[in-house]
Amino acid sequence: MSILVVGSVAFDSVETPFGKADEVLGGSGTYFSTSASFFTDVNLVAVVGEDFPTEHTDFLKSRNIDLSGLTTAAGKTFRWSGEYGYDLNEAKTLDTQLNVFAEFCPQLPQSYMDADYVFLANIDPELQLDVLKQVVRPKVVACDTMNFWIDGKREALIKTLKHVDILLINDGEVRQLADEANMVKAAHKVLAMGPKTLVVKRGEYGATMFTEHGVFSAPAYPLEDVYDPTGAGDTFAGGFMGYLASVRDHSDAAMRRAIIFGSVMASFNVEDFSLQRMKATG
Amino acid sequence: MSILVVGSVAFDSVETPFGKADEVLGGSGTYFSTSASFFTDVNLVAVVGEDFPTEHTDFLKSRNIDLSGLTTAAGKTFRWSGEYGYDLNEAKTLDTQLNVFAEFCPQLPQSYMDADYVFLANIDPELQLDVLKQVVRPKVVACDTMNFWIDGKREALIKTLKHVDILLINDGEVRQLADEANMVKAAHKVLAMGPKTLVVKRGEYGATMFTEHGVFSAPAYPLEDVYDPTGAGDTFAGGFMGYLASVRDHSDAAMRRAIIFGSVMASFNVEDFSLQRMKATG
Repeated sequence: MSILVVGSVAFDSVETPFGKADEVLGGSGTYFSTSASFFTDVNLVAVVGEDFPTEHTDFLKSRNIDLSGLTTAAGKTFRWSGEYGYDLNEAKTLDTQLNVFAEFCPQLPQSYMDADYVFLANIDPELQLDVLKQVVRPKVVACDTMNFWIDGKREALIKTLKHVDILLINDGEVRQLADEANMVKAAHKVLAMGPKTLVVKRGEYGATMFTEHGVFSAPAYPLEDVYDPTGAGDTFAGGFMGYLASVRDHSDAAMRRAIIFGSVMASFNVEDFSLQRMKATG
Repeated sequence: MSILVVGSVAFDSVETPFGKADEVLGGSGTYFSTSASFFTDVNLVAVVGEDFPTEHTDFLKSRNIDLSGLTTAAGKTFRWSGEYGYDLNEAKTLDTQLNVFAEFCPQLPQSYMDADYVFLANIDPELQLDVLKQVVRPKVVACDTMNFWIDGKREALIKTLKHVDILLINDGEVRQLADEANMVKAAHKVLAMGPKTLVVKRGEYGATMFTEHGVFSAPAYPLEDVYDPTGAGDTFAGGFMGYLASVRDHSDAAMRRAIIFGSVMASFNVEDFSLQRMKATG
Protein backbone atom coordinates (compact mmCIF):
# COMPACT_ATOMS: atom_id res chain seq x y z
CA MET A 1 0.00 0.00 0.00
CA SER A 2 1.63 3.26 -1.07
CA ILE A 3 1.84 6.47 0.96
CA LEU A 4 1.25 9.99 -0.27
CA VAL A 5 3.42 12.58 1.44
CA VAL A 6 3.53 16.35 1.04
CA GLY A 7 6.50 18.10 2.61
CA SER A 8 9.61 20.07 1.93
CA VAL A 9 12.57 19.09 -0.20
CA ALA A 10 15.37 21.37 0.81
CA PHE A 11 18.98 22.29 1.20
CA ASP A 12 20.03 22.23 4.85
CA SER A 13 23.03 23.87 6.46
CA VAL A 14 23.64 22.41 9.88
CA GLU A 15 26.22 22.85 12.60
CA THR A 16 26.48 20.52 15.59
CA PRO A 17 29.25 20.18 18.20
CA PHE A 18 30.51 17.27 16.07
CA GLY A 19 30.72 18.87 12.65
CA LYS A 20 29.18 20.96 9.95
CA ALA A 21 27.29 20.37 6.71
CA ASP A 22 26.63 23.01 4.04
CA GLU A 23 23.68 22.93 1.65
CA VAL A 24 23.14 19.20 1.95
CA LEU A 25 19.98 17.34 0.96
CA GLY A 26 17.25 17.81 3.58
CA GLY A 27 13.58 18.66 4.07
CA SER A 28 10.70 16.96 5.86
CA GLY A 29 9.41 15.33 2.66
CA THR A 30 12.84 13.99 1.80
CA TYR A 31 13.54 12.42 5.20
CA PHE A 32 10.02 11.00 5.46
CA SER A 33 10.01 9.53 1.94
CA THR A 34 13.40 7.95 2.26
CA SER A 35 12.58 6.37 5.61
CA ALA A 36 9.14 5.14 4.47
CA SER A 37 10.67 3.72 1.28
CA PHE A 38 12.25 0.96 3.37
CA PHE A 39 8.70 -0.31 4.05
CA THR A 40 6.49 0.60 1.08
CA ASP A 41 6.07 2.71 -2.08
CA VAL A 42 5.99 6.46 -1.61
CA ASN A 43 4.41 9.21 -3.72
CA LEU A 44 6.05 12.55 -2.98
CA VAL A 45 4.42 15.96 -3.45
CA ALA A 46 6.85 18.87 -3.20
CA VAL A 47 8.53 21.65 -5.15
CA VAL A 48 12.18 22.37 -5.84
CA GLY A 49 13.93 25.22 -7.63
CA GLU A 50 16.00 25.16 -10.80
CA ASP A 51 19.12 24.79 -8.65
CA PHE A 52 18.14 21.29 -7.47
CA PRO A 53 20.66 18.81 -8.87
CA THR A 54 19.73 15.54 -10.61
CA GLU A 55 22.08 13.79 -8.19
CA HIS A 56 19.42 14.23 -5.49
CA THR A 57 16.42 13.28 -7.66
CA ASP A 58 18.40 10.24 -8.81
CA PHE A 59 18.85 9.21 -5.18
CA LEU A 60 15.13 9.56 -4.42
CA LYS A 61 14.31 7.52 -7.57
CA SER A 62 16.79 4.87 -6.46
CA ARG A 63 14.64 4.45 -3.34
CA ASN A 64 11.60 3.84 -5.62
CA ILE A 65 10.01 7.12 -4.58
CA ASP A 66 7.50 8.30 -7.19
CA LEU A 67 8.42 11.85 -8.17
CA SER A 68 5.48 12.64 -10.52
CA GLY A 69 4.33 15.06 -7.81
CA LEU A 70 7.70 16.80 -7.51
CA THR A 71 7.45 20.11 -9.37
CA THR A 72 10.41 22.16 -10.51
CA ALA A 73 9.62 25.88 -10.33
CA ALA A 74 11.49 28.98 -11.38
CA GLY A 75 13.60 30.18 -8.49
CA LYS A 76 15.62 28.66 -5.69
CA THR A 77 15.00 25.52 -3.62
CA PHE A 78 13.83 25.89 0.01
CA ARG A 79 16.72 26.42 2.39
CA TRP A 80 16.99 25.88 6.15
CA SER A 81 19.93 26.46 8.40
CA GLY A 82 20.23 25.64 12.06
CA GLU A 83 22.55 24.62 14.82
CA TYR A 84 22.54 22.32 17.85
CA GLY A 85 24.39 22.59 21.15
CA TYR A 86 25.44 19.61 23.26
CA ASP A 87 21.79 19.14 24.16
CA LEU A 88 20.99 17.65 20.78
CA ASN A 89 17.27 17.50 21.56
CA GLU A 90 16.55 20.98 20.24
CA ALA A 91 17.55 22.78 17.03
CA LYS A 92 18.08 26.51 16.92
CA THR A 93 16.86 27.74 13.54
CA LEU A 94 19.26 30.34 12.13
CA ASP A 95 17.52 30.99 8.82
CA THR A 96 14.53 29.80 6.78
CA GLN A 97 14.21 30.73 3.09
CA LEU A 98 10.92 29.43 1.71
CA ASN A 99 11.91 30.37 -1.87
CA VAL A 100 9.83 28.25 -4.32
CA PHE A 101 7.63 27.05 -1.42
CA ALA A 102 6.29 30.58 -0.93
CA GLU A 103 4.19 30.33 -4.10
CA PHE A 104 3.62 26.59 -4.18
CA CYS A 105 0.06 25.43 -5.12
CA PRO A 106 0.28 21.67 -5.14
CA GLN A 107 -1.67 19.89 -7.91
CA LEU A 108 -1.85 16.18 -7.30
CA PRO A 109 -1.11 13.89 -10.25
CA GLN A 110 -4.16 11.75 -11.06
CA SER A 111 -2.28 8.63 -9.91
CA TYR A 112 -1.86 10.06 -6.37
CA MET A 113 -5.51 10.89 -5.67
CA ASP A 114 -6.73 7.59 -4.30
CA ALA A 115 -3.99 7.24 -1.68
CA ASP A 116 -5.09 5.36 1.45
CA TYR A 117 -2.21 6.57 3.63
CA VAL A 118 -1.40 10.27 3.70
CA PHE A 119 1.34 12.07 5.58
CA LEU A 120 1.25 15.85 5.86
CA ALA A 121 4.88 16.55 6.71
CA ASN A 122 5.96 19.77 8.37
CA ILE A 123 5.01 22.61 5.95
CA ASP A 124 2.47 25.46 5.94
CA PRO A 125 -0.82 24.03 7.31
CA GLU A 126 -2.71 25.68 4.44
CA LEU A 127 -0.67 23.66 1.96
CA GLN A 128 -1.30 20.55 4.06
CA LEU A 129 -5.06 21.09 3.80
CA ASP A 130 -4.86 21.91 0.06
CA VAL A 131 -3.25 18.55 -0.57
CA LEU A 132 -5.57 16.64 1.71
CA LYS A 133 -8.63 18.05 -0.09
CA GLN A 134 -7.42 16.50 -3.34
CA VAL A 135 -7.23 12.97 -1.92
CA VAL A 136 -10.34 10.83 -2.27
CA ARG A 137 -11.32 9.26 1.06
CA PRO A 138 -7.93 8.39 2.55
CA LYS A 139 -7.92 5.68 5.26
CA VAL A 140 -5.27 7.20 7.53
CA VAL A 141 -4.12 10.83 7.64
CA ALA A 142 -1.10 11.67 9.76
CA CYS A 143 0.44 15.07 10.27
CA ASP A 144 3.48 16.87 11.66
CA THR A 145 4.00 20.56 12.38
CA MET A 146 6.36 22.85 14.33
CA ASN A 147 6.52 25.90 16.60
CA PHE A 148 6.83 28.19 13.53
CA TRP A 149 3.28 27.26 12.38
CA ILE A 150 1.80 26.87 15.89
CA ASP A 151 2.85 30.48 16.46
CA GLY A 152 2.31 31.97 13.04
CA LYS A 153 -0.60 30.06 11.50
CA ARG A 154 -2.52 28.72 14.47
CA GLU A 155 -6.00 29.11 12.92
CA ALA A 156 -5.02 27.32 9.71
CA LEU A 157 -3.31 24.59 11.68
CA ILE A 158 -6.35 23.99 13.87
CA LYS A 159 -8.48 23.75 10.71
CA THR A 160 -6.13 21.13 9.27
CA LEU A 161 -6.02 19.16 12.54
CA LYS A 162 -9.80 18.56 12.39
CA HIS A 163 -9.11 16.20 9.45
CA VAL A 164 -6.10 14.44 10.94
CA ASP A 165 -6.15 10.96 12.53
CA ILE A 166 -2.60 10.84 13.89
CA LEU A 167 -0.54 13.85 14.94
CA LEU A 168 3.19 13.30 15.42
CA ILE A 169 4.94 16.25 17.12
CA ASN A 170 7.58 16.73 19.83
CA ASP A 171 6.90 17.45 23.49
CA GLY A 172 7.59 21.18 23.31
CA GLU A 173 5.15 21.46 20.40
CA VAL A 174 2.45 19.58 22.32
CA ARG A 175 2.82 21.97 25.26
CA GLN A 176 2.78 25.00 22.95
CA LEU A 177 -0.20 23.83 20.91
CA ALA A 178 -2.22 23.06 24.07
CA ASP A 179 -0.87 26.01 26.07
CA GLU A 180 -0.44 23.61 28.99
CA ALA A 181 2.77 22.54 30.76
CA ASN A 182 1.65 19.11 32.00
CA MET A 183 2.10 16.53 29.22
CA VAL A 184 -0.92 14.37 30.09
CA LYS A 185 -3.28 17.33 30.28
CA ALA A 186 -1.75 18.86 27.14
CA ALA A 187 -2.16 15.58 25.24
CA HIS A 188 -5.86 15.44 26.06
CA LYS A 189 -6.34 19.02 24.93
CA VAL A 190 -4.66 18.17 21.61
CA LEU A 191 -6.77 15.03 21.17
CA ALA A 192 -9.84 17.25 21.55
CA MET A 193 -8.70 19.25 18.49
CA GLY A 194 -9.34 16.34 16.12
CA PRO A 195 -6.59 13.70 16.06
CA LYS A 196 -7.61 10.36 17.59
CA THR A 197 -3.94 9.54 18.21
CA LEU A 198 -1.12 11.76 19.40
CA VAL A 199 2.44 10.50 19.11
CA VAL A 200 4.80 12.65 21.18
CA LYS A 201 8.39 12.50 19.94
CA ARG A 202 10.88 12.98 22.79
CA GLY A 203 14.27 12.74 21.13
CA GLU A 204 16.72 10.57 23.07
CA TYR A 205 13.92 9.70 25.53
CA GLY A 206 11.78 7.90 22.95
CA ALA A 207 8.14 8.41 22.09
CA THR A 208 4.81 8.34 23.91
CA MET A 209 1.48 7.66 22.22
CA PHE A 210 -1.76 9.03 23.67
CA THR A 211 -5.21 7.86 22.54
CA GLU A 212 -8.59 8.15 24.22
CA HIS A 213 -8.01 4.60 25.51
CA GLY A 214 -4.60 5.03 27.10
CA VAL A 215 -0.91 5.64 26.85
CA PHE A 216 2.00 3.70 25.33
CA SER A 217 5.64 4.70 25.79
CA ALA A 218 8.73 3.32 24.10
CA PRO A 219 12.27 4.35 24.95
CA ALA A 220 14.75 5.27 22.21
CA TYR A 221 17.73 3.06 21.49
CA PRO A 222 20.68 4.58 23.43
CA LEU A 223 23.30 5.69 20.91
CA GLU A 224 27.02 6.04 21.34
CA ASP A 225 27.42 8.36 18.35
CA VAL A 226 24.93 11.09 17.54
CA TYR A 227 26.20 13.50 14.90
CA ASP A 228 23.13 15.34 13.62
CA PRO A 229 19.53 15.07 14.84
CA THR A 230 18.15 16.93 11.78
CA GLY A 231 15.33 14.95 10.22
CA ALA A 232 14.99 12.53 13.14
CA GLY A 233 11.29 13.35 13.56
CA ASP A 234 10.52 12.96 9.85
CA THR A 235 12.51 9.75 9.69
CA PHE A 236 10.58 8.48 12.72
CA ALA A 237 7.29 9.35 10.99
CA GLY A 238 8.49 7.61 7.82
CA GLY A 239 9.17 4.37 9.66
CA PHE A 240 5.90 4.72 11.59
CA MET A 241 3.66 5.34 8.56
CA GLY A 242 5.70 3.06 6.29
CA TYR A 243 5.10 0.17 8.65
CA LEU A 244 1.35 0.89 9.02
CA ALA A 245 0.93 1.08 5.24
CA SER A 246 2.96 -2.09 4.69
CA VAL A 247 0.71 -4.14 6.99
CA ARG A 248 -2.50 -2.23 6.05
CA ASP A 249 -3.38 -2.02 9.72
CA HIS A 250 -3.69 0.97 12.03
CA SER A 251 -5.06 -0.75 15.13
CA ASP A 252 -3.62 0.22 18.50
CA ALA A 253 -1.35 -2.84 18.44
CA ALA A 254 -0.07 -1.97 14.94
CA MET A 255 0.63 1.62 15.99
CA ARG A 256 2.64 0.39 18.99
CA ARG A 257 4.79 -1.71 16.67
CA ALA A 258 4.99 1.23 14.25
CA ILE A 259 6.53 3.37 17.03
CA ILE A 260 9.31 0.82 17.38
CA PHE A 261 9.98 0.85 13.62
CA GLY A 262 9.96 4.65 13.66
CA SER A 263 12.46 4.69 16.54
CA VAL A 264 14.78 2.31 14.75
CA MET A 265 14.80 4.42 11.58
CA ALA A 266 15.37 7.64 13.55
CA SER A 267 18.20 6.10 15.56
CA PHE A 268 20.03 5.27 12.33
CA ASN A 269 19.41 8.69 10.83
CA VAL A 270 21.05 10.71 13.61
CA GLU A 271 24.32 8.78 13.32
CA ASP A 272 25.42 10.96 10.39
CA PHE A 273 24.69 14.26 8.64
CA SER A 274 21.89 14.67 6.07
CA LEU A 275 20.60 11.29 4.77
CA GLN A 276 24.07 9.68 4.72
CA ARG A 277 23.21 7.01 7.24
CA MET A 278 20.06 5.86 5.41
CA LYS A 279 22.00 5.91 2.15
CA ALA A 280 24.60 3.62 3.72
CA THR A 281 21.89 1.26 4.98
CA GLY A 282 20.72 0.65 1.42
CA MET B 1 14.71 -10.88 53.32
CA SER B 2 15.35 -7.60 55.11
CA ILE B 3 17.29 -4.64 53.75
CA LEU B 4 19.82 -2.52 55.59
CA VAL B 5 19.82 1.13 54.58
CA VAL B 6 22.00 4.00 55.70
CA GLY B 7 20.84 7.46 54.68
CA SER B 8 19.55 10.75 55.93
CA VAL B 9 16.47 11.40 58.02
CA ALA B 10 15.74 15.06 57.65
CA PHE B 11 13.47 18.06 57.67
CA ASP B 12 12.86 19.35 54.15
CA SER B 13 11.61 22.75 53.09
CA VAL B 14 10.47 22.64 49.49
CA GLU B 15 8.89 25.08 47.08
CA THR B 16 7.47 24.03 43.71
CA PRO B 17 5.22 25.95 41.28
CA PHE B 18 2.31 24.09 42.90
CA GLY B 19 2.90 24.79 46.55
CA LYS B 20 5.21 24.94 49.51
CA ALA B 21 6.12 22.72 52.44
CA ASP B 22 8.07 23.82 55.51
CA GLU B 23 10.18 21.51 57.67
CA VAL B 24 8.35 18.37 56.61
CA LEU B 25 9.65 14.82 57.02
CA GLY B 26 12.26 14.02 54.37
CA GLY B 27 15.69 12.52 53.81
CA SER B 28 17.04 9.79 51.56
CA GLY B 29 16.85 7.13 54.28
CA THR B 30 13.26 8.04 55.09
CA TYR B 31 11.98 7.91 51.51
CA PHE B 32 13.91 4.72 50.75
CA SER B 33 12.78 2.91 53.92
CA THR B 34 9.15 3.84 53.53
CA SER B 35 9.06 2.75 49.89
CA ALA B 36 10.95 -0.51 50.53
CA SER B 37 8.66 -1.26 53.48
CA PHE B 38 5.86 -2.04 51.01
CA PHE B 39 7.95 -5.04 49.89
CA THR B 40 10.04 -6.26 52.81
CA ASP B 41 11.45 -5.50 56.27
CA VAL B 42 13.84 -2.59 56.54
CA ASN B 43 16.63 -1.84 59.03
CA LEU B 44 17.44 1.85 59.06
CA VAL B 45 20.77 3.40 60.06
CA ALA B 46 20.65 7.16 60.53
CA VAL B 47 20.90 9.96 63.08
CA VAL B 48 18.42 12.60 64.16
CA GLY B 49 18.65 15.51 66.56
CA GLU B 50 16.78 16.13 69.78
CA ASP B 51 14.23 18.16 67.80
CA PHE B 52 12.94 15.10 65.91
CA PRO B 53 9.32 14.47 66.97
CA THR B 54 7.95 11.07 67.99
CA GLU B 55 5.18 11.62 65.44
CA HIS B 56 7.76 10.84 62.72
CA THR B 57 9.38 7.88 64.46
CA ASP B 58 5.89 6.53 65.12
CA PHE B 59 5.14 6.71 61.40
CA LEU B 60 8.34 4.84 60.49
CA LYS B 61 7.54 2.18 63.11
CA SER B 62 4.02 1.87 61.70
CA ARG B 63 5.67 0.83 58.41
CA ASN B 64 7.54 -1.92 60.31
CA ILE B 65 10.87 -0.18 59.83
CA ASP B 66 13.40 -1.32 62.43
CA LEU B 67 14.79 1.77 64.16
CA SER B 68 17.42 0.14 66.39
CA GLY B 69 19.99 1.82 64.14
CA LEU B 70 18.42 5.28 64.39
CA THR B 71 20.52 7.31 66.83
CA THR B 72 19.36 10.46 68.54
CA ALA B 73 22.27 12.86 69.03
CA ALA B 74 22.65 16.18 70.79
CA GLY B 75 21.90 18.96 68.32
CA LYS B 76 19.56 19.56 65.42
CA THR B 77 18.28 17.17 62.76
CA PHE B 78 19.67 17.42 59.19
CA ARG B 79 17.86 20.09 57.14
CA TRP B 80 17.59 20.53 53.38
CA SER B 81 15.77 23.21 51.47
CA GLY B 82 15.28 23.44 47.75
CA GLU B 83 13.01 24.62 45.00
CA TYR B 84 11.82 23.41 41.60
CA GLY B 85 10.74 25.38 38.54
CA TYR B 86 8.24 24.15 35.96
CA ASP B 87 10.90 21.72 34.77
CA LEU B 88 10.38 19.45 37.74
CA ASN B 89 13.27 17.21 36.71
CA GLU B 90 15.89 19.17 38.63
CA ALA B 91 15.97 20.56 42.18
CA LYS B 92 17.84 23.71 43.02
CA THR B 93 19.34 23.29 46.49
CA LEU B 94 18.94 26.47 48.52
CA ASP B 95 20.48 25.27 51.76
CA THR B 96 21.97 22.15 53.34
CA GLN B 97 22.54 21.97 57.10
CA LEU B 98 24.25 18.69 58.01
CA ASN B 99 23.79 19.34 61.76
CA VAL B 100 23.96 15.96 63.62
CA PHE B 101 25.15 14.24 60.40
CA ALA B 102 28.41 16.24 60.51
CA GLU B 103 29.70 14.15 63.43
CA PHE B 104 27.85 10.91 62.77
CA CYS B 105 29.86 7.68 63.20
CA PRO B 106 27.40 4.90 62.52
CA GLN B 107 27.67 1.84 64.75
CA LEU B 108 25.57 -1.02 63.44
CA PRO B 109 23.39 -2.88 65.95
CA GLN B 110 24.43 -6.54 66.13
CA SER B 111 21.14 -7.57 64.53
CA TYR B 112 21.92 -5.54 61.36
CA MET B 113 25.34 -7.00 60.62
CA ASP B 114 24.38 -10.00 58.56
CA ALA B 115 22.19 -8.09 56.10
CA ASP B 116 22.11 -9.62 52.61
CA TYR B 117 20.72 -6.52 50.91
CA VAL B 118 22.35 -3.16 51.60
CA PHE B 119 21.42 0.25 50.27
CA LEU B 120 23.83 3.15 50.72
CA ALA B 121 21.45 6.07 50.26
CA ASN B 122 22.69 9.51 49.36
CA ILE B 123 25.00 10.63 52.18
CA ASP B 124 28.73 11.27 52.57
CA PRO B 125 30.53 8.43 50.73
CA GLU B 126 32.86 7.99 53.73
CA LEU B 127 29.85 7.20 55.92
CA GLN B 128 28.58 4.84 53.22
CA LEU B 129 31.86 2.90 53.32
CA ASP B 130 31.96 2.94 57.15
CA VAL B 131 28.60 1.22 57.23
CA LEU B 132 29.41 -1.23 54.47
CA LYS B 133 32.56 -2.36 56.32
CA GLN B 134 30.43 -3.41 59.28
CA VAL B 135 28.22 -5.74 57.24
CA VAL B 136 29.36 -9.35 56.96
CA ARG B 137 29.39 -10.52 53.33
CA PRO B 138 26.26 -8.83 51.93
CA LYS B 139 24.80 -10.39 48.76
CA VAL B 140 23.79 -7.15 47.00
CA VAL B 141 25.12 -3.66 47.67
CA ALA B 142 23.38 -0.76 45.94
CA CYS B 143 24.28 2.90 46.21
CA ASP B 144 23.08 6.41 45.39
CA THR B 145 24.98 9.68 45.43
CA MET B 146 24.65 13.25 44.12
CA ASN B 147 26.54 16.14 42.48
CA PHE B 148 27.49 17.48 45.94
CA TRP B 149 29.64 14.39 46.66
CA ILE B 150 30.81 13.84 43.06
CA ASP B 151 32.25 17.35 43.25
CA GLY B 152 33.35 17.54 46.86
CA LYS B 153 34.36 13.97 47.81
CA ARG B 154 35.26 12.36 44.53
CA GLU B 155 38.12 10.23 45.90
CA ALA B 156 36.03 8.84 48.76
CA LEU B 157 33.15 8.16 46.40
CA ILE B 158 35.34 6.26 43.95
CA LYS B 159 36.66 4.18 46.85
CA THR B 160 33.10 3.33 47.92
CA LEU B 161 32.04 2.51 44.34
CA LYS B 162 34.62 -0.28 44.12
CA HIS B 163 32.45 -2.24 46.58
CA VAL B 164 29.10 -1.46 45.01
CA ASP B 165 27.11 -3.85 42.77
CA ILE B 166 24.33 -1.52 41.65
CA LEU B 167 24.63 2.24 41.34
CA LEU B 168 21.38 4.21 41.00
CA ILE B 169 21.90 7.86 40.02
CA ASN B 170 20.32 10.36 37.63
CA ASP B 171 21.54 11.20 34.13
CA GLY B 172 23.27 14.44 35.08
CA GLU B 173 25.16 12.62 37.83
CA VAL B 174 26.27 9.88 35.40
CA ARG B 175 27.65 12.50 33.01
CA GLN B 176 29.36 14.37 35.85
CA LEU B 177 30.87 11.25 37.43
CA ALA B 178 32.20 10.03 34.07
CA ASP B 179 33.07 13.50 32.77
CA GLU B 180 31.46 12.48 29.46
CA ALA B 181 28.39 13.98 27.75
CA ASN B 182 27.26 10.91 25.80
CA MET B 183 25.14 8.67 28.05
CA VAL B 184 26.26 5.33 26.58
CA LYS B 185 29.94 6.19 26.81
CA ALA B 186 29.46 7.70 30.29
CA ALA B 187 27.64 4.56 31.48
CA HIS B 188 30.52 2.35 30.41
CA LYS B 189 33.03 4.58 32.19
CA VAL B 190 30.95 4.32 35.37
CA LEU B 191 30.67 0.53 35.06
CA ALA B 192 34.48 0.44 34.90
CA MET B 193 34.58 2.08 38.36
CA GLY B 194 33.16 -1.00 40.09
CA PRO B 195 29.37 -1.35 39.82
CA LYS B 196 28.23 -4.24 37.61
CA THR B 197 24.90 -2.52 37.09
CA LEU B 198 24.11 1.15 36.55
CA VAL B 199 20.49 2.30 36.80
CA VAL B 200 20.10 5.80 35.35
CA LYS B 201 17.09 7.65 36.77
CA ARG B 202 15.62 10.08 34.24
CA GLY B 203 12.68 11.64 36.03
CA GLU B 204 9.55 11.84 33.89
CA TYR B 205 11.40 9.95 31.12
CA GLY B 206 11.81 6.76 33.16
CA ALA B 207 14.94 4.76 33.86
CA THR B 208 17.64 3.01 31.84
CA MET B 209 19.73 0.13 33.15
CA PHE B 210 23.22 -0.54 31.78
CA THR B 211 25.15 -3.74 32.44
CA GLU B 212 28.10 -5.27 30.64
CA HIS B 213 25.56 -7.38 28.73
CA GLY B 214 23.23 -4.68 27.47
CA VAL B 215 20.68 -2.00 28.08
CA PHE B 216 17.11 -1.99 29.39
CA SER B 217 14.88 1.09 29.36
CA ALA B 218 11.49 1.60 30.96
CA PRO B 219 9.37 4.72 30.55
CA ALA B 220 7.81 6.41 33.57
CA TYR B 221 4.05 6.42 34.05
CA PRO B 222 2.80 9.76 32.66
CA LEU B 223 1.25 11.75 35.49
CA GLU B 224 -1.46 14.37 35.40
CA ASP B 225 -0.55 15.81 38.79
CA VAL B 226 3.03 16.24 39.93
CA TYR B 227 3.34 18.35 43.05
CA ASP B 228 6.79 17.64 44.46
CA PRO B 229 9.52 15.44 42.98
CA THR B 230 11.57 15.47 46.23
CA GLY B 231 12.46 11.90 47.21
CA ALA B 232 11.45 10.40 43.85
CA GLY B 233 14.88 8.84 43.35
CA ASP B 234 15.01 7.36 46.87
CA THR B 235 11.46 6.09 46.54
CA PHE B 236 12.41 4.51 43.20
CA ALA B 237 15.42 2.84 44.86
CA GLY B 238 13.18 1.63 47.70
CA GLY B 239 10.81 -0.10 45.31
CA PHE B 240 13.73 -1.46 43.28
CA MET B 241 15.66 -2.94 46.22
CA GLY B 242 12.52 -3.87 48.14
CA TYR B 243 11.38 -6.00 45.22
CA LEU B 244 14.79 -7.66 44.76
CA ALA B 245 14.99 -8.49 48.48
CA SER B 246 11.42 -9.79 48.56
CA VAL B 247 12.10 -12.30 45.74
CA ARG B 248 15.72 -12.97 46.82
CA ASP B 249 16.81 -12.66 43.22
CA HIS B 250 19.03 -10.11 41.51
CA SER B 251 19.26 -11.68 38.07
CA ASP B 252 18.95 -9.40 35.05
CA ALA B 253 15.28 -10.37 34.67
CA ALA B 254 14.56 -9.60 38.33
CA MET B 255 16.28 -6.22 38.05
CA ARG B 256 14.15 -5.35 35.00
CA ARG B 257 11.01 -6.10 37.01
CA ALA B 258 12.49 -4.18 39.96
CA ILE B 259 12.78 -1.07 37.75
CA ILE B 260 9.05 -1.26 37.08
CA PHE B 261 8.28 -1.54 40.82
CA GLY B 262 10.63 1.37 41.51
CA SER B 263 8.87 3.48 38.86
CA VAL B 264 5.46 2.73 40.31
CA MET B 265 6.53 3.76 43.80
CA ALA B 266 8.18 6.97 42.54
CA SER B 267 5.14 7.90 40.46
CA PHE B 268 2.98 7.75 43.58
CA ASN B 269 5.44 9.71 45.66
CA VAL B 270 5.59 12.81 43.44
CA GLU B 271 1.83 13.27 43.58
CA ASP B 272 2.09 15.06 46.93
CA PHE B 273 4.56 16.79 49.23
CA SER B 274 6.84 14.92 51.65
CA LEU B 275 5.70 11.30 52.17
CA GLN B 276 1.99 12.16 52.15
CA ARG B 277 1.21 10.05 49.11
CA MET B 278 2.86 6.91 50.49
CA LYS B 279 1.15 7.51 53.83
CA ALA B 280 -2.19 7.63 52.01
CA THR B 281 -1.41 4.39 50.15
CA GLY B 282 -0.96 2.57 53.46
